[in-house]
Amino acid sequence: MASPEIETLTQALSRLPGLGPRSARRAVLHLIKKRETALEPLLKALGAVAETLSTCAICGNIDTSDPCAICTDPRRDARSLCVVEEVADLWALDRSRLFPGRFHILGGRLSALDGVRPEDLSIDALLRRIEAGGIEEVVLAMNATLEGQTTSHFVAERVERYPVRVTQLAHGLPVGGELDYLDEGTLAQALRARRPVA
Amino acid sequence: MASPEIETLTQALSRLPGLGPRSARRAVLHLIKKRETALEPLLKALGAVAETLSTCAICGNIDTSDPCAICTDPRRDARSLCVVEEVADLWALDRSRLFPGRFHILGGRLSALDGVRPEDLSIDALLRRIEAGGIEEVVLAMNATLEGQTTSHFVAERVERYPVRVTQLAHGLPVGGELDYLDEGTLAQALRARRPVA
Repeated sequence: MASPEIETLTQALSRLPGLGPRSARRAVLHLIKKRETALEPLLKALGAVAETLSTCAICGNIDTSDPCAICTDPRRDARSLCVVEEVADLWALDRSRLFPGRFHILGGRLSALDGVRPEDLSIDALLRRIEAGGIEEVVLAMNATLEGQTTSHFVAERVERYPVRVTQLAHGLPVGGELDYLDEGTLAQALRARRPVA
Repeated sequence: MASPEIETLTQALSRLPGLGPRSARRAVLHLIKKRETALEPLLKALGAVAETLSTCAICGNIDTSDPCAICTDPRRDARSLCVVEEVADLWALDRSRLFPGRFHILGGRLSALDGVRPEDLSIDALLRRIEAGGIEEVVLAMNATLEGQTTSHFVAERVERYPVRVTQLAHGLPVGGELDYLDEGTLAQALRARRPVA
């Protein structure tokens, strides 16, 4: 029905996470009806990103400059390093603006099922960064999944040889979490890591 | 946090219908991680559409050719013309592949609230198409909303002067509709338009 160009665009959009064929079609309709205000800006923005996209040689972040904006930011504390699985995790942590240091992206998690081995992750690069000195604390911020925690333990073992403090994110009740609705794993973690009331 | 280029792309994507800031961020992450398989094809598809996009001078359809693929399709019956409000409605009707004729897009609906007057819609162009001859039936396929039906009545009045059959889509129970869950307006329409059992 629609022309091949429009069909191709619909298919390209429908492959984005969160968009299916139906919403992609709605998005395309919006784009072709609002050519000046929607299609052209998106095309320009996409072109600009495609042109400048690069992976940071230091931390593995994907940004439009190499080294990335975080690694070159002088206001960030170079003494603490937060290790995450993916770029998405870096974005999530950075949105909270609570971590003032720099990041290191492993590029995934150890997984026997998916065939991801330690040499597939940028663990060696992490160790080289630590060896280079200047880092005092390594915060392990892997996902609280089985594979994330396996990775966390593995990285912790490799990092512990160096004279740096190794910490990990606390596990327990999420803010607003009601005991009745939480899974037993979370409750067990929260109970195990209980703290004295100040 | 993210570079200005990535931020601009996120904002451009988040303005698409069905995407908010959160899902736009996920989409951008997907795009920058899958550069070859997601970003480049989308960029190319978007560029191709932006380059060829045009409004059909005959029916008002937005397509990558002018006249559009529907108006130039020789297999379509030029004798029946379906009048719709928007391009989205044409796409919806055409997806069902039930209407073998051509289309005419009004470009909106009459609306006192939004200040849309008859001269803002392509009603004159519709009348000129009918005057030119060859059309035997005009199907009014406006939305079953108050404004859609107002528009339908208005167009019907203008078209009735010509020697063509003017019809409109049937109103009644949707397929799978349960009486208990349907609004009274639909029930009233279905009852008013009741037909003898064959």
